[in-house]
Formats: sequence, structure tokens, C-alpha cells
Amino acid sequence: MYDVVTFGETMLRLSPPDYRRLEHAYSFDLNAGGAEMSVACNVSRLGLRSAWVSRLTDNSLGHYIRNKAREQGVDTSHILWTKEDRVGVYFVEFGASPRPSRVVYDRAHSAMSKVKPGDFDWESILKDVKWFYTTGITPALSKSAADATLEALRTSRQMGCRVACDLNYRARLWSEDEAHKCMVPLMEYVDVLISTEEDTAKVLKITGESYQEVAKKLAEQFNFEAVCITIRTDLSVLRNQWTAIVYADGKVYDDTTYEVEIIDRVGAGDSFASGFLYGCIFGDVDKGLRYGNAYAALLHSVPGDINWCTLQEVETLIKGGGTRISR
Amino acid sequence: MYDVVTFGETMLRLSPPDYRRLEHAYSFDLNAGGAEMSVACNVSRLGLRSAWVSRLTDNSLGHYIRNKAREQGVDTSHILWTKEDRVGVYFVEFGASPRPSRVVYDRAHSAMSKVKPGDFDWESILKDVKWFYTTGITPALSKSAADATLEALRTSRQMGCRVACDLNYRARLWSEDEAHKCMVPLMEYVDVLISTEEDTAKVLKITGESYQEVAKKLAEQFNFEAVCITIRTDLSVLRNQWTAIVYADGKVYDDTTYEVEIIDRVGAGDSFASGFLYGCIFGDVDKGLRYGNAYAALLHSVPGDINWCTLQEVETLIKGGGTRISR
Amino acid sequence: MYDVVTFGETMLRLSPPDYRRLEHAYSFDLNAGGAEMSVACNVSRLGLRSAWVSRLTDNSLGHYIRNKAREQGVDTSHILWTKEDRVGVYFVEFGASPRPSRVVYDRAHSAMSKVKPGDFDWESILKDVKWFYTTGITPALSKSAADATLEALRTSRQMGCRVACDLNYRARLWSEDEAHKCMVPLMEYVDVLISTEEDTAKVLKITGESYQEVAKKLAEQFNFEAVCITIRTDLSVLRNQWTAIVYADGKVYDDTTYEVEIIDRVGAGDSFASGFLYGCIFGDVDKGLRYGNAYAALLHSVPGDINWCTLQEVETLIKGGGTRISR
Amino acid sequence: MYDVVTFGETMLRLSPPDYRRLEHAYSFDLNAGGAEMSVACNVSRLGLRSAWVSRLTDNSLGHYIRNKAREQGVDTSHILWTKEDRVGVYFVEFGASPRPSRVVYDRAHSAMSKVKPGDFDWESILKDVKWFYTTGITPALSKSAADATLEALRTSRQMGCRVACDLNYRARLWSEDEAHKCMVPLMEYVDVLISTEEDTAKVLKITGESYQEVAKKLAEQFNFEAVCITIRTDLSVLRNQWTAIVYADGKVYDDTTYEVEIIDRVGAGDSFASGFLYGCIFGDVDKGLRYGNAYAALLHSVPGDINWCTLQEVETLIKGGGTRISR
Amino acid sequence: MYDVVTFGETMLRLSPPDYRRLEHAYSFDLNAGGAEMSVACNVSRLGLRSAWVSRLTDNSLGHYIRNKAREQGVDTSHILWTKEDRVGVYFVEFGASPRPSRVVYDRAHSAMSKVKPGDFDWESILKDVKWFYTTGITPALSKSAADATLEALRTSRQMGCRVACDLNYRARLWSEDEAHKCMVPLMEYVDVLISTEEDTAKVLKITGESYQEVAKKLAEQFNFEAVCITIRTDLSVLRNQWTAIVYADGKVYDDTTYEVEIIDRVGAGDSFASGFLYGCIFGDVDKGLRYGNAYAALLHSVPGDINWCTLQEVETLIKGGGTRISR
Amino acid sequence: MYDVVTFGETMLRLSPPDYRRLEHAYSFDLNAGGAEMSVACNVSRLGLRSAWVSRLTDNSLGHYIRNKAREQGVDTSHILWTKEDRVGVYFVEFGASPRPSRVVYDRAHSAMSKVKPGDFDWESILKDVKWFYTTGITPALSKSAADATLEALRTSRQMGCRVACDLNYRARLWSEDEAHKCMVPLMEYVDVLISTEEDTAKVLKITGESYQEVAKKLAEQFNFEAVCITIRTDLSVLRNQWTAIVYADGKVYDDTTYEVEIIDRVGAGDSFASGFLYGCIFGDVDKGLRYGNAYAALLHSVPGDINWCTLQEVETLIKGGGTRISR
Repeated sequence: MYDVVTFGETMLRLSPPDYRRLEHAYSFDLNAGGAEMSVACNVSRLGLRSAWVSRLTDNSLGHYIRNKAREQGVDTSHILWTKEDRVGVYFVEFGASPRPSRVVYDRAHSAMSKVKPGDFDWESILKDVKWFYTTGITPALSKSAADATLEALRTSRQMGCRVACDLNYRARLWSEDEAHKCMVPLMEYVDVLISTEEDTAKVLKITGESYQEVAKKLAEQFNFEAVCITIRTDLSVLRNQWTAIVYADGKVYDDTTYEVEIIDRVGAGDSFASGFLYGCIFGDVDKGLRYGNAYAALLHSVPGDINWCTLQEVETLIKGGGTRISR
Repeated sequence: MYDVVTFGETMLRLSPPDYRRLEHAYSFDLNAGGAEMSVACNVSRLGLRSAWVSRLTDNSLGHYIRNKAREQGVDTSHILWTKEDRVGVYFVEFGASPRPSRVVYDRAHSAMSKVKPGDFDWESILKDVKWFYTTGITPALSKSAADATLEALRTSRQMGCRVACDLNYRARLWSEDEAHKCMVPLMEYVDVLISTEEDTAKVLKITGESYQEVAKKLAEQFNFEAVCITIRTDLSVLRNQWTAIVYADGKVYDDTTYEVEIIDRVGAGDSFASGFLYGCIFGDVDKGLRYGNAYAALLHSVPGDINWCTLQEVETLIKGGGTRISR
Repeated sequence: MYDVVTFGETMLRLSPPDYRRLEHAYSFDLNAGGAEMSVACNVSRLGLRSAWVSRLTDNSLGHYIRNKAREQGVDTSHILWTKEDRVGVYFVEFGASPRPSRVVYDRAHSAMSKVKPGDFDWESILKDVKWFYTTGITPALSKSAADATLEALRTSRQMGCRVACDLNYRARLWSEDEAHKCMVPLMEYVDVLISTEEDTAKVLKITGESYQEVAKKLAEQFNFEAVCITIRTDLSVLRNQWTAIVYADGKVYDDTTYEVEIIDRVGAGDSFASGFLYGCIFGDVDKGLRYGNAYAALLHSVPGDINWCTLQEVETLIKGGGTRISR
Repeated sequence: MYDVVTFGETMLRLSPPDYRRLEHAYSFDLNAGGAEMSVACNVSRLGLRSAWVSRLTDNSLGHYIRNKAREQGVDTSHILWTKEDRVGVYFVEFGASPRPSRVVYDRAHSAMSKVKPGDFDWESILKDVKWFYTTGITPALSKSAADATLEALRTSRQMGCRVACDLNYRARLWSEDEAHKCMVPLMEYVDVLISTEEDTAKVLKITGESYQEVAKKLAEQFNFEAVCITIRTDLSVLRNQWTAIVYADGKVYDDTTYEVEIIDRVGAGDSFASGFLYGCIFGDVDKGLRYGNAYAALLHSVPGDINWCTLQEVETLIKGGGTRISR
Repeated sequence: MYDVVTFGETMLRLSPPDYRRLEHAYSFDLNAGGAEMSVACNVSRLGLRSAWVSRLTDNSLGHYIRNKAREQGVDTSHILWTKEDRVGVYFVEFGASPRPSRVVYDRAHSAMSKVKPGDFDWESILKDVKWFYTTGITPALSKSAADATLEALRTSRQMGCRVACDLNYRARLWSEDEAHKCMVPLMEYVDVLISTEEDTAKVLKITGESYQEVAKKLAEQFNFEAVCITIRTDLSVLRNQWTAIVYADGKVYDDTTYEVEIIDRVGAGDSFASGFLYGCIFGDVDKGLRYGNAYAALLHSVPGDINWCTLQEVETLIKGGGTRISR
Repeated sequence: MYDVVTFGETMLRLSPPDYRRLEHAYSFDLNAGGAEMSVACNVSRLGLRSAWVSRLTDNSLGHYIRNKAREQGVDTSHILWTKEDRVGVYFVEFGASPRPSRVVYDRAHSAMSKVKPGDFDWESILKDVKWFYTTGITPALSKSAADATLEALRTSRQMGCRVACDLNYRARLWSEDEAHKCMVPLMEYVDVLISTEEDTAKVLKITGESYQEVAKKLAEQFNFEAVCITIRTDLSVLRNQWTAIVYADGKVYDDTTYEVEIIDRVGAGDSFASGFLYGCIFGDVDKGLRYGNAYAALLHSVPGDINWCTLQEVETLIKGGGTRISR
């Protein structure tokens, strides 16, 4: 029934405007931020049918987050509402060279960290679904969340739903060893891995001489259908380069490198995943790579984790649309 | 060394501007909010020397709160910093008739809720201090916070420091019975009680036919030096009346009733306490009542929990300064 | 499949903040405004399943409006998208006594004004729907829009879907005579009429000595199941009173009168209709009246046409919840 | 060539938004504020031809002020530009009961305070001009400014241009005695006096049992053609009543009293003068009184000293237009 | 009487702040935008006397636009006011690489698109005027607007007023063929053509190996006194290079290339034209080129279409003033 | 008792947001700005005990400035309050290439410009103080301020407190010759000179082939313990490079050059001085140089003159922390 179902936590995202520091702030811009909800929103914007599955506290803050997913056309009917626990919060300080941007988390004790196996009727949710998407953040939230993730992954495999996963290692949530111990068994259920070279080294302990070698090793060791390595070069805080490669079918696919001027870089990996899933559904991994890269490059130009760009903008960019004003 | 030392929790206060709802917000105004810190700030603004004692997470959010106390001249050197726990948050939605203003708390697991006896060197802090001030919120935070409060109160008594306490019952923190069981023993160490009729009924189980009777009963039962009952009449959400009475020395003192147009009503009780302490230090309970009322009335006209009005404005208001523009 | 389906135009609503005039503005707050979409959003907020049917230009402005309906859980899948025409705009200047608030319209040539019979598959849309809702604005947009309204009303009757209609006379769109000539034949298909005394006089040419008499005459002449007359008293620009009566089953129902402090009064009639439909579905016209009034009263306290208040707030208000801050 | 020429100082007006105090501000709203420029702008808005004469520092701040007059259609070609001195600044804190609004001036050493006789070619400026308008602020700025005012008033008399003057006593600029000594001789050249009862007592030492008596005494003692007494009643900081009376031709004219909800009360007297001049030019003192009062009442509803309301709004209000939203 | 008279449409310009997308906006910054009004404003800022001729709807939106021209000292007395039609609107989304900025127009049915021959007394308006300026947008608005443009151009020729014209091709208004058919005959009346290479290819069907060759061909084929080709290089969305060349008297003039950091790039061509006219009036085409380029380069650094920079800043830049802070 | 005492003027700093010009502003962001107060704040942020000595007008504007110093933990108890004079103001326009940022001063007649010898009890203030810091701005304010500066410097020497001084030449305050005549005698009391090559040429008339030579000449001629030359390269208005060298003990120390993306460049020299003093106190001139450079580089990334970065950020940057987002 859906093209894509995602599973994970969304937090309130609070960020002082105008490059102010948290200590210097008098106001915060409010957004909803979470990798898996972002992917559900993004693929809906690109034209796919999606649902986001999570556990949320039933107060105005939880409703705010649910609304922001609905605004993008995401099905939110599977959210598990609770009167307990809290909505996590994270704070973003935007930087400029030589000061990097910075995230301060206040996510402990959230409703989603208390999620557990049996909370969702995965068989019903995943019926006729093409892709299930989650990230390494979900199992990192707690032991019960890791168990719930495993339950969802197993059901995906049973239901014939392919699985894409971004490692998304978060050092504030667990150590590299904890991540390794938890994530490796989950890889059995993953069809497409999306990651950075840094995270594959930390979590899966795979390194190599080149991105290509890393991708190949990963695919072979974990029997992935495809491995995407996203590659960011930080020219400065406000100017980056973005590209990615894919290893699939014994081949490496690469793509153009985009110059990006950074308005808000949070969510680039999620946008890559979103474009990649879109491209795979309407084409192949090569199309996935090109749509993923273009959509991720565009993400940097808009505020917030959700990618407000459109399919048309993605396709114009892929065709070399240029940077002149569009009238 | 200080005129007033206060002890309690301060949270980030986030409020959508322009009467927006939390669900409808795109930004939050940021303030620091907590009854005891407000009192420390307010009495400093009025000209007293004050310190605020608390436990705070050592990150940008904790630093923000500390800075806001320092900005008002409060001594913050006794704050206990921790790398653990979190800074509590509360959200305020401002209302207009018939929709009341509303507070949503996200304060569980805060650094201050983990405070415990032995955390502070109260003998040193309270040396030569005239008044110790806390509220019923502090012991409500946790069992260990209640124990820490008791420790501070006992030391105050030992050191000859008088104690003022506002009951400040918070139903989200504990039940009326829990509050009763915890607060009654603490009353032994309290010299001046500040409260509303509603809270004295809930927490101390004292009711009466009139405010005067309630105050008298309280003073007699708990042997308080003075009992202040603050009295708010809600003509509408945006227009209230404010006054208070004091019972002391076997007498009831009353004062003018102020008409207030509400910009931000959070913190009125704290402002009363602040003005009351000022008046008592430089006069008597009658002066305390008049300064407390005037300062509390003025509080409603400024954004935030802290009362940015000045001693001169309090005294002009007491003298009947009027509502004409001051050029 | 839906509890409520609504049909009408939504415009961008641009309003200068802080009581600025249009000539004095440097920025506009942006909202989506349209009576019928507001009702679809509001009933969804109260817990009903709703859809909004309209015709919209397929650009970012149209998408913005669609998103705002989706954000509230409204089904927007029946919107007819067009590359032609434009998205209407209206400007609101908020006033304070003695300057009334003011609306400036720029709505000519909108996509919705070009709607015509046959544009929608009403039989499919209205299948198993409890209520169809539209207002006198929709037929006023153009001749073809009036024809399309008639088509929708006839299908409602055929499908057994009850019809509620607010007269909503707009002098900028048509004359009283034009409105009369168009609206009277449509009344045949209306089960519940919602209006003000002023509009019934202008459009239906029904007047009387009292609101009660007007309602009775309307019900008898047009054979309405129920007639709601909403009654606003302007104490000043920023303070109003609100109530309504219903005539049904040969009886007049009345309700409490609410004092309202006005943050944004646009959309009160829509909120009444929303609460009324909710109350009727889960009760009767009397419950409808009480929910409609309470929800309309609350509307004045929030910015925007959409009523961000909740069912719980409606029910607390009906029970006399008071204007004290809710902690 | 002009209907009205005005002469006086304009300052930058800086005011913290949202009822913040100066100490609590993080931003200021910027306006240009000065009684005489406001009158020039206001009468231009009402349809008259006007010029504003002043001395301004030739930097961006001076240009800002000039631009704001030009924006309203005022002729600014007579401004005397100087590289010396400064542009005065005043700060406004908006209040709410029981805290009155407050003005903090930083106007010393301004370019206009250095104005002196001979700076302007008054004969050329005042040729074929109907009304010259200034206030008691201009001579209060300095001895040379008082001399320059006298020069302008004398030339007005010679040129057959009628003179209107608002006493506008400012205690921060001079004492009541200084004002008295300076202003009394100037009254010889004034045809129409506009003032409050308080200012006539302070500056002209005229008091009486009633407004009417005060006006009559003034007219007789100083041989004024007309005396306008504006009358404000402060129900609260945010709610006032406004009216005025005129004494002319041996008669007292009075008018309706307006209830005003205050967004920004600075500039009401200037708006009265503006409407009064308009009414006199196109009618008589009675029309002047009604237009002055209505325009002054409307002033309270808009931010800034300049009255952004229109002639049509004035006339609608005079006809009893009501406080309902205008669609 | 004027140095420069311009003729064309101005719209409200609405742009979401902070690089937000239209779909993601909650507010719009408001400006007035239109090439010809910008030129009138800009040359007035540089010290010339200018008038702007247009047709505007007589409501608050039209008044806003008129005010913005007056604010800069532009004579707006020739505007033709109408109660009909509407004020056009355009929306700007600001981009960052790789997302280009984007304009969405909502300009159909505007008052200016209904302008027609005979609407203005051109002989009176153009009396003693040095330059008449319009762009290819004006004739593109409608057939009657094209006829009105022709009328103005013919009168300019008759009155001895030189004509400068920017091709300003807008694909949303007409096809290249339509533009070609309409514009070629108008070229007979144009003394100075200002354009980009792209637009001359599209509208006048002139191409060449180099900018120089294109300019020469244009001058020779249409007998222009001078041809200016503006040249923008898009290094990225936020960093461009700007220069221009002029062909006149059989010679090519060139100038320095400016590096520009883009705050708002809309209006650069208008700023070039403004500086060019200024330079020509007080010098020659070479001075025009240098002033045009410097003024256009500065335009990119300020928000809005109007160039708030000053003659002094232009001249400092030409002299190589540098990018250090000026204290 | 303090690590650092600073002496100088602080002004209100008003800056239009979003690169607007002063003429185009409708609001100003408010900060407190003054080199010496910034140094006191900055060193307090880095962990030192500091006091700021100044003379301030006792009104809300003066209190605002005092509060901003207190917020950072600076001791403000030595401020001399006066009812006279004014608080200076400066306006900042932020630029983008090719338009440089610009400062407009309105500082004449300030309270600090009236400071004079005898105003402060320097012996008491400087007791047990490690460093006294002032800049060439303080003596430039007036003759009496220069005398007061000399008094402070002499007392520092007597008390064994080392002196650091930034030349900070301000052409709006005095000519190069005036500066030379006043500053040279003060150099006798200075231990560490901080300056740019430009300012040493203008004020001390020392030039050289290289920064190193200039530093060496200065140290030798004036017998400085150390000379810091800060070096900024303006790649564009928004991108600069920053480094500095120190000459001490007959050696030149240099450091890495930082690429900086400019949010707000005002205060970089003050941040250098702050980091330099910190490094010297906890190390030596080499550590001072590295901490000064890193802290100055970070300053460019935050709004306002005060450097909201932390010691941890300085040390991370020195260690090559990189520009990746910190999670």
C-alpha cells in the first residue's frame, strides 16, 4: 500500500537564528527533525506514498511533529501515542568558518526510546510495501528500541519488503563497540546500506584504501544488494562538495560532484536516501545515485531537515540547470 | 553577606510569540524561568544583594540560565555544575478570553531534581544572610530534593537566617496528599508563608470563610511570623485585579487593589515575594505588603518571569503615579 | 467514508503584523484562508474524517494551501489541479477601536472561480459521507462556480448526504439581488442553514423582530431542518461577545454568551459550523449549538482562520473552565 | 503654494517591540518622530499640499528621516543640511496597566537645536501658504531655535499666513518658567492655539473651573481666533477616551468622545492638529474639531507617530462607521 | 523639467526570508519591484530629477507602491489611478548553490497591463526631459500596453528626449517570436539599448562570436547611439562576477569586472541603466559605463530591487575603495 | 583580585538586520559595543576574573550596558554613574562585496568622554591585578579622558600591574597628529602593544618592510615587552584571512592563518587581545599568540562585539578541529 515505510524518532529541533549561539539566543526557530521522518516526507514530496511509524507523547509537541509529517502527505496513522515520556529536543547552532555547526541533544527519556517489540502490527503496516527504511539511530535509542527494530526488519524480510538502512552513528547515544555489537546482526536483513566511510569504520569495522574498496568489502561481507557511500568535502563551514558512489552488481557507479553553499546542512544523508529510493523504484541504482545526489545537494540550500525541493528541481539539476535566477 | 539567598530550579522557558499555539508555532521566545531565581533577580534589581543556589547541567543551556541571573547582578558562584542530567524546559502558550494561558512542562530528569543533601555548604552560603527563600516546587522535584530543602531550612534556622516560602503547589509534580505530607514538616522552619488561598487548602489543608481567616489560622497553626495571601481576580484572560493581605502580629494588613493589563502573568507571586522581602528589610510587613503588591502588579506588564521594573517605578506606583505616558 | 466534505475556495491570507497598515507594512504574516477549508480542518481537529474539494493552481502557492489542509489531517486528494489561473489573495489589516479590522481582496481570476460542473466525481466523493458543507461564497465566485455548487448540492441530496450551508454574503463578489437570485434555489438542497441576521436579510430577504423569529421564518419558508443564527456584539474592536441560537423541531435553543478578547476574529462563523457539525454527529442540535459556540469563542484567541484549539479545550470551556492559567 | 508648512525637529524613534523594556530589549523598531513633521505628513495624507522645514545632519540617519516625510508626499526641499551636529533619538517603552508608557530622550546637541534666525528664506517658503504650524518644542530646543521660531512666526504674520501652535510642553527641555517667558511673546503671532489643560496651566498660567472656561480665557487674553483643548481620559494604559473642544467666535464647540484601544498613543495631539487644519481649510472650526477628533482617535490604533489612516476612514468614523470588520 | 522619466509596471514583491521556500514560508518580506520604477528611484538617489509614469489600482497596495517611489524623491504625480484591475504580485525565492533563485509571477490582469494610448499627456510629461527610459516588459504586458509604449517613444522622439531601453525579455509574458515582432519596430525610437547577449539573441535575433561583435552589429543594424551589453558570470548562486561593455562611436568601451557577494540580485540591470544615465548626463558613455557597472555591482549587496547605495559609494568603488570596514 | 581590569567606553550598537542599509531599516538589532568592555567579557568567558571600569549615564541605556557586562561575569561595581551626559551610540551596516561594512558614530557628549582624573580610586581597583587593558580610543575621547587614562596607566605601573594597549586609531575621533602627540607619551607605561601595521604607522609613525620589522622597531623604540601585529587579508567582504605575529624577547613568533567566513567582524582585535592575555597568564607569548589568533578567528562567526565562543572551542580549533558539524 505504501512505497516506503520508515521507522524512527523525531525531535523538536530548536535553532537560534542568524548564527547566534545558544547562550546568546533570545528565540529559537522551530522545526521537526528526525532522519526517518525526513525520509518519509521527502519521498512523499517526490511523489511516493509513504508512512512514518513512531511512538510519540500525546501533547502539543507530539501533535506538532505529527502535523509536520502530515503536511507533506505522509501517513501518520500508525503512530503509537502515549501519555507518558517526553518529546526529545535537539538544538542546532549554525556555524561559519572556523566555527563548525554544532548539535546539542536533549533526547533521553523520549517516548520513542521506550518503544518495544509488539508495539506495532508490522505485518499489517508492511503489507504490499516496497521499501522499509530505518537508521542506526533507532536501535541506539535503547535496548527495547533495538529489539523493536529487529522485529520490524524481520517482518520486512518475511513480507518481501526490501530494507534500506543508514548507519547514522551517533556517539552521544552509544559507543562504537556497542553500535558494532548491535548493528552487525541487523545487517542480515538489510538490502541496501547507506553510510559514510567514517561510520562504516566505526560501526561495521570495515575500512579500505578507497571509497570503492570500502563499498565492495561491505557488499561482499554483508551480502548487501547495494552499498551507497556518501562523500562530503568541507571546503569551509559554508561551502562544501557533495557526491556519493554506489557499489552494486559487482560494479561501482559514480556521479558528478556538487558544489553546495550551505544554508542548513542537517538532513543531507536523509535526502540522499530519499532520492536513492525514488530512483530505484522508477529505475535502477544508477538512477538512484543520481537522484540521491542531486536531492542531497539541494537539501543544503533550504532551512530544516526536510527537503522542500521538488522532483522537478532534482531533474533540472541533474540536467545541468545552472545557477541563474529562474523567472 | 547576602540580603537574600534563594534555592530552586530554573528551566528554559519557551513561548510562541503573538498568541500562537504550540502546534502552530514556528519559533519560540526564550527566557529563563524559575520562581526562586526570579526572586533572586528581582531583589537584586530592587537593590539587595542576592545569590541563587541550584544544580545545573554544564552545557550551553545551563550557561544561558546562569548568565541571565548574572545579568541582574545575582551571585551565581554557588551553582553546582554537573555533566549529567538535563536542563528542564517549560512551554507557555499565552491566551485571550475565553482561552486561558497554558503551561506545558518537560522538566523530568533535570539536574536540579537530582539535588541531594550535602551538595552545598549551606553554613558558608548562609553566613550573615538575612533571608532564605524557597518554594514548594523545590521539594516537589524529588525525594532527594525534598531532603536537600530540609537541610537548607534547618541550616537557615541554625544560622539565624529568616525563611520565606511560597507554597507554589504544582499538580504536575505531586498530588495534594504528597505535598501535604512533605510540606507540613517543613513549615516548622518557615518564618513567612506566602501563598494563595487555593494552595493553602490543597497543601496545608487550611480553609476559611475569608482570606483573613485563612491567614490567621495558618499563622496560629504553624506559628508563622507572617502570612501573605495573594489574591488575583480574573476579569478576563487579559485583564486581572491583583492584591494581597498579610497577617502578622495578630493583625491583618491590606492594600489597594491594582487593575492589571496582562502582557505576561507568569511570575507575579515571585514578584510579590521580592517586593515583600525588600519592604520588610527596609521597613516592616506593611511596607512589604505595599512593595510586594505594587511590584507584582507591575510584573504583569513585562514579558518574562523576571520583573524588569525598577524600585523607582514601584515607589511611583505606590504614590499613585497614574497611567499617563511619562516623558 | 468521510464525516464531512467541504467545497470552496482558499486564498493566501497576508496580514501585516503588529497592527500595521498595508501602506506601512514591511512584511506579511502568511496563512491560508477560506471558509470551507477551515471547516474541513476544524472538524478534523475535533476528531472527524474530512475532505476538502477545490480547484487550485499547480504552483508553490497552491501547494502551500494544500499542505496546510493536510497538516490538519484533511484529505486533499480530490483537489483539481490546473496549470492555469491564479491563487487568490486577501489582505487583512487588524484594527483597534475606533478603527475596525479590514479585508482587501485580490481574488478575481482564481482557479476556483473557474470551477464548473463536471469537474469532480461527486458521486464517488460523497459516498457514505455524513455532511456536505459549503457557503454562499462558492456560488458567488462565478456563474460556473454557482453551477458546480448546484451540482454538488444535488448529488448530496441524491446520495443521502446532509447539507449545511453558511450564507456568508460578500458584497465585493456580488450584489444582494444577485445573491438572492442565485441562493434561493440552492436552499432547496440545504438541511441546515448557518447565518447572521444581517446576511439572511440581504440574501434571503427574511427579517424579523428577533433572532428567534428570523430563524423560525427561515426554517418554515425554506423547510430547513435547523437554522443557526450567530450573534456577535462588538463592545469594541478588541472585545466582543459571541453567542448563537438554533431553531429546530419547532423549538429555539440558546446558549451562554461568551466574552471574547480578540487576537484574530476571522473564521468565527466557520468555527461555529465546525463545532455544530461535530455536536450534531455525536449528539443533537443542542450539543451542536454548545460546541459550535464554544469553538467559535475560542477561535478569536488564535491567529489565523483555522481554529487551533482542541476538543478538550472546547469541552473544558463548556464546563466553565475559567480563565486562570492552566499549569 | 502649500496648504500647510510646519517647522520643527524630527528624531529617530526607537522602541522595543512586544512591551519589552529598554533594559530587556534585543531590538528596536525604528520610526521617525517629531510633532511638526507628523503634521506635515498627516495633512498630506488627508490631501493637502505640505512642506516640512527643519535642520538635519547630512548622514544616513538624516536621510532616513527626510525619506519618511517624502514617502507621505511632503516637500522636503527646504531642509537645511549640515555636516555637523547629530540626529536626536528618543526611546519609547510601551506600557500596560499599571505601568505607563515612557519616553527616554537623547536629543541634546541635535542639528535642529542649532537652528538660528536667517537659516531659512521664510518669505519664499511661506509665499501663498495657508497655515504655518509649529509647537512649543521648537523654541524649547535652544535660544537660537526660539529666535528662529520667532522669525518664522513674524514672517507668517507679514505674509498673511495663519499660524497654529500646539504648546507641547516638555519638562525635559525647559522649566515651566522658562517656557512661560519664551512662549508668551510668541502667542502674539498665533491664530489658533492647540493644547491640553495641563500645558496651558504650566506654560501660559491660565487655569479655570472647566475646559470651556480655560479655552475662553485663553482666547480672550491672547486674542486667539480659536483655542482647541484636547481631552484624554486614561481608563487604563491600553484604554483611553479622547475628545476635544474648540472655543471660537465666542462659542464653545464640542464633539463626541471616542473610546480608543491603544496600540501606540504617541502623536495624538499632532493628528488632532492635522485633522483640525484640514477641517478648517475645507470648512470651519466645527468641521475642524470633528475631523481633528476622529483623526486623533484613529491615531491610537496604528504604530508610529505618523497617522497612516485615510480621509475616508476619518469620514466613515465621523458618520459612525462602527467597529465591525470591513470586507 | 526632469532628467529622467520612466514608464512601466511595479508589482508587490513578496519574498520569504532566510532562504525559505514559498511552500515553507510563514511570512513574506515586502518590497515594491519593477524595472522602470527602480530606475526612477535609483537616478533620484544619485541626484537626478525623475518621474515614474504608470497605471495603478487606487487601494492600499497601489498607495504602498507610490509611497516607495516618493520616498526616494521620485515625482509620482503622473500616475494614472484606477478603481479597477489589480496590483500585480511577484514572489522571489532566494537560492544557494546548487538551487538557483526563482521568481513566481502573479501579474495577469494588473492595472498597468490595461494601460492604453491616450492615457497620459506625454507632451506635457516629456517637456524638457533629458531621457525617457522603459524596458521590454512594458510592451509585453498587453497589446494596448505595447501601443502605449509606442506612443510614448514617438512623443519622446518628437520632443527631443533621448530614449534608453532595456530589452528585459520575460518568457512568462510572451514568446521570443512575439517579442521580436513587437520590439523590432520600437527600436527605431531607441537611442541607447541596454541588454544581455541572451536577450538580444532572443528578441532582436542578433548573435555574434563575442560581446563586442554583438554590440557592434546591434548598433549598426538599429542605428543605436550606444549599445550596452551587461555580462554576469555565475560562479555560484551566491557569488557572481559583473561587468558590461559599451559600443558607441564605433568603439568598444570596457571596464573592470566586479566580484559580487549576493544578498539580492534582482535589479542589477536596472542599477546599471541608472548609473549609465547618470554618467552620460554628467559625462559620456565611458563614464556611464563605469558608473553603471559600479552601481550594478553594489546593487547585489542590498535587499530589494531599489539600489539604496549612494553616489559617494559608487565613486569610492570606482576609485578602488576596497572591502575593509569603513569607520 | 582581578586577572584583568579594562578601562574604556561602551556604546549602544544598533545594526539593521539582513544587510539592510540604515536608510532602508525598519528595525535595529541591539548590542553593547566597546573594545575594553569586550575584552573584560571575553577574558571572563575564558575563565579569568575581570572588571570593567567606565563612566555611564544612569538610565535604562546605561543599565543595559552594565547588565551585558554582568551577564558575562564581569565585575561592574567600579562603574561611575552619572545623571548627566548621554550613552553613545554607533550604527553598523553590514556589507557584502563590493560594498564594505560601515560604521556611523553618534558618540559625542557621552558620559565616558567626560571622565577625568580622580574619578576612580585606581589604587584600590588595581590592587593585585595582573593586567590593565585599554585602547587608543579612551584617550581619544577628550582631553580629560586622556588625562584619566594617563592616571590609570601610571597607577598600574606603580602597582606592578602590567599594561596591554591596542592603538585602535579612530579617524572620526582625532587626527593622526593628535593621536601621535597624545599616545607616544603613554607608551612609556605600556608593556604589551597590540596593533595593526596601519595604526602603528598612523599613530606611532613606525613603518617597515615587513610586519616583523615593524614589530621589532616598535619593541625597541618603546621598550615594549611584546608587540603583537594583527594581520587581516580581505579576500572579499564576507571572506577574510586572519593571523598575527608577536615580537618578544628578540624573537618573532608566528602562527597559522585562519580562513574566516564573516558573520560579524567587529571585535576581532579585542578577541585577539583577550586570547593573548589568557595565553600569557597561563603560558607565554607564544601561547598567547595562538589563543589570541584562534579566539579572534572564531569571533568573526558570531554576531556582536562580544565573543560568545568558549575556551574549549578555542582549544579545539588550535588542535585543528575542522569544520564538520559537531554532534
